Amino acid sequence: MTQWLHWIDLMGVAVFAVSGTLMAFRKHMDGFGVIVLASVTAIGGGTLRDMILDLPVFWVHSTDFLYTILAAAVITIIWLRVTHKFPYQTLLIADAMGLAFFNVMGLQKALNYGADPLIAIVMGTMTGAFGGLIRDVICRDIPLVLKGELYATTCIFGSLVYLAIFWGWDNSSLAMLGAVIGTLSLRVTAIYRHWQLPLFQGLH
Amino acid sequence: MTQWLHWIDLMGVAVFAVSGTLMAFRKHMDGFGVIVLASVTAIGGGTLRDMILDLPVFWVHSTDFLYTILAAAVITIIWLRVTHKFPYQTLLIADAMGLAFFNVMGLQKALNYGADPLIAIVMGTMTGAFGGLIRDVICRDIPLVLKGELYATTCIFGSLVYLAIFWGWDNSSLAMLGAVIGTLSLRVTAIYRHWQLPLFQGLH
Amino acid sequence: MTQWLHWIDLMGVAVFAVSGTLMAFRKHMDGFGVIVLASVTAIGGGTLRDMILDLPVFWVHSTDFLYTILAAAVITIIWLRVTHKFPYQTLLIADAMGLAFFNVMGLQKALNYGADPLIAIVMGTMTGAFGGLIRDVICRDIPLVLKGELYATTCIFGSLVYLAIFWGWDNSSLAMLGAVIGTLSLRVTAIYRHWQLPLFQGLH
Repeated sequence: MTQWLHWIDLMGVAVFAVSGTLMAFRKHMDGFGVIVLASVTAIGGGTLRDMILDLPVFWVHSTDFLYTILAAAVITIIWLRVTHKFPYQTLLIADAMGLAFFNVMGLQKALNYGADPLIAIVMGTMTGAFGGLIRDVICRDIPLVLKGELYATTCIFGSLVYLAIFWGWDNSSLAMLGAVIGTLSLRVTAIYRHWQLPLFQGLH
Repeated sequence: MTQWLHWIDLMGVAVFAVSGTLMAFRKHMDGFGVIVLASVTAIGGGTLRDMILDLPVFWVHSTDFLYTILAAAVITIIWLRVTHKFPYQTLLIADAMGLAFFNVMGLQKALNYGADPLIAIVMGTMTGAFGGLIRDVICRDIPLVLKGELYATTCIFGSLVYLAIFWGWDNSSLAMLGAVIGTLSLRVTAIYRHWQLPLFQGLH
Repeated sequence: MTQWLHWIDLMGVAVFAVSGTLMAFRKHMDGFGVIVLASVTAIGGGTLRDMILDLPVFWVHSTDFLYTILAAAVITIIWLRVTHKFPYQTLLIADAMGLAFFNVMGLQKALNYGADPLIAIVMGTMTGAFGGLIRDVICRDIPLVLKGELYATTCIFGSLVYLAIFWGWDNSSLAMLGAVIGTLSLRVTAIYRHWQLPLFQGLH
């Protein structure tokens, strides 16, 4: 189980590091700024979660995460130098995968900690969404998370899938799988169909 | 006393959630971004305070705060859909009230913790000003806190009122009331009279 | 030794407070915003480091740091009012000195804590670079740390100098001195010679 969580964490870190590197490329950044942006994107959300829950910050006691970021950034840079084009779709998909992995990770960690399900849902959403939020704020984009397409909402949906499976079958591995698939498929569908949650529609 | 603190915290959270929702409306945000912005504004400052003092983060062990944010955001959205206009004055007043409540809350919590009065003043100012600062940074506005009108300065004034009453009468409830009134009235006056603290005047 | 660390911390705080005040002037900020920006720049990186390592935040238990920030900001303001010009070079040099002091401070604190050298290097870089990163994000500049000139890279170089001296001679005072000189000289040289780390060169 702990092994599982570690792998899900590493996968989330890898895809968010790719997404941070792609954003750095898009914003004409260079040099070490790429690594900084990849790292902030990859470990920002989980760092905030662990600090808020007062748990040991996940990447401080294992160097796996930093090596994963370095590897993901280097591979992305080589890929960009070879293909010479910016894969905007890939950025969105990498971001969606990171969101799904980190959401379930944050939810699971908060539930293990003994948090109320509502708090655990918030922790999952925060783990998934904050790395990207910080990435976008640093790059001076209006954060993806605040744009029309369902973003944080997909985390809540994924978390509800988790809780439904967990309460029904008492199997947290299955619940995690269901949550990842649920979050990812809703997010990808929202991207392609431009689904929105119109709250202020027609007001501006 | 603890009960009092809880209510002041909830009121601060509610008005800052309103202020975050209004800002989201002003910035043409939509969907869940509204909730994210309301939450960041409402609990950002206090979260930072608790993490820095290494106390349990206030909203993790009680779901009251999250339900308050949801309620405040929903009421604000309904109000905006009904009235169809953006109340800029209301945003400033809501912001001023949140500032006053959170300032006294942060000050009180730091003093209970045993912090030096100077550190406690900083904690009060931070609790009051950081949620709004993060809100403005995410929305790519130059933060209110950094603009000419007395902002953080009013927190210091309110904190001095608190310390004066507390040292004179040894009554922390009265001191809290005095600090809220002091901070709020100075801030509102500063907004209407455009008071400034000119440090660099005539230099640019 | 502890005394040494305290002085290096205070020097880093002072020069970053100067750099924050200069930036506030450049951005036409005024009033208390100057103090806020000076403080965020000066203690942002170290605060994050201490929260992540779950150590007591360095400025909470000693008022020295806050008085240092106040003094540095006041002196800088007086200097600007007297000379009436913006010293862009001085901002860069102050920033470079803060980077060097804070880098070695963060590295040392993480090593004392028992962190892996890789984690300690990251902590040093973060301590050095994050205050300025937050300063630039608040002011809506693309952060210096993400620009072409070697920035975070110089922290890594300085940290390697530290580790080489420490492993070779087992003298941490000498290692700290070497790291400060190494970081500072590489950073200043990079500024004057416009050295870059081209990763995406010719791709845009």
